[in-house]
Amino acid sequence: MNPNRIAPRSGVAFRLEEGEILTVVDPQGGQVSDLLAFNANDVREVISNGRTFDYEETISLGQGNRLWSNRSKPMLEIVEDTVGRHDFLLTPCSEATFRHFYADKPVHRGCFGNLAEALAPYGVEADMIPTAFNLFMNVPVDGATGRLAVEPPVSKPGDHISMRALSPLIIGLTACSAYDSCGGTFKPIDYAIDRPTAGVT
Amino acid sequence: MNPNRIAPRSGVAFRLEEGEILTVVDPQGGQVSDLLAFNANDVREVISNGRTFDYEETISLGQGNRLWSNRSKPMLEIVEDTVGRHDFLLTPCSEATFRHFYADKPVHRGCFGNLAEALAPYGVEADMIPTAFNLFMNVPVDGATGRLAVEPPVSKPGDHISMRALSPLIIGLTACSAYDSCGGTFKPIDYAIDRPTAGVT
Repeated sequence: MNPNRIAPRSGVAFRLEEGEILTVVDPQGGQVSDLLAFNANDVREVISNGRTFDYEETISLGQGNRLWSNRSKPMLEIVEDTVGRHDFLLTPCSEATFRHFYADKPVHRGCFGNLAEALAPYGVEADMIPTAFNLFMNVPVDGATGRLAVEPPVSKPGDHISMRALSPLIIGLTACSAYDSCGGTFKPIDYAIDRPTAGVT
Repeated sequence: MNPNRIAPRSGVAFRLEEGEILTVVDPQGGQVSDLLAFNANDVREVISNGRTFDYEETISLGQGNRLWSNRSKPMLEIVEDTVGRHDFLLTPCSEATFRHFYADKPVHRGCFGNLAEALAPYGVEADMIPTAFNLFMNVPVDGATGRLAVEPPVSKPGDHISMRALSPLIIGLTACSAYDSCGGTFKPIDYAIDRPTAGVT
């Protein structure tokens, strides 16, 4: 694997072809990466936490789970996951969340602004950005009260998650910009795209 | 209150002005109603479960909580709630969910189809329908495993929830069509819109 690096507090977008495997690595540990997926042929079809919760019957997603679209199609399958703790409840950090949660700190456009800029060339408008699948983000939920908390990720250096594209996709991916999500510091995220050899699955 | 009735397995859409209070009643008990809210002046702004979980810091919403938009604006405030058990994780039932969960039963367009038809005159396309706020829907989550289940509602006849519009909205509202959500039967939903007397809040 010859990974690409996403600088701290930035984001990228790229095309992922059907069958390709996207591996996202937390190189230093304790960092979050927000992931979005759109149908490459029609970006009105987009990853949906609700449809994923419907069909996977859990809010805790890991190896073997699939990520579904708003049109009830599976978009990505998690084929390897060394962490097992990700979040699909919360939205990308944004100027508004910085003002709300970090009133004493400089406002940053956050993962939301980074995703909006990176995805704009693909025809994705800011309002079309849904709740992201937040890799390595640690959001425990109290089953009795429903209360949630944002804790530091449990990912260690080199931990990763690999997902296979089940159709042609546009992916948005960030190195998260929020203090609480990342344990108070900002670190890079690495990713690689692998195409399995024909005939080998 | 002189309520309007939504027939079993159907849906409506209507305008709710700023300050008006929408009360949704479960007249027979044990029925679910999917609610959507859009900015009446720009339907690209829509209710967001992720933004609501961000700002309310819980997945269990009831009296005192607000429902937020994808633009980080509060749209509705829950001012009264006799049930305290609703769902904001799962998407409206649809032809696809009927095929998936009820393979032995007739396919129904579900709340998703009913909402899409009711909202179309307001410029809302089907792909713009997000995860709904599912009134009276009972979806316990196991905090340790993340597993969720769809249980019959705990609402009794006459139970209700009242929400105040914090800006001009287009509301979509259903009497749910899915077997599991409603304890196996289909019942109506009642709703009323009240405008508080000027000067009284």
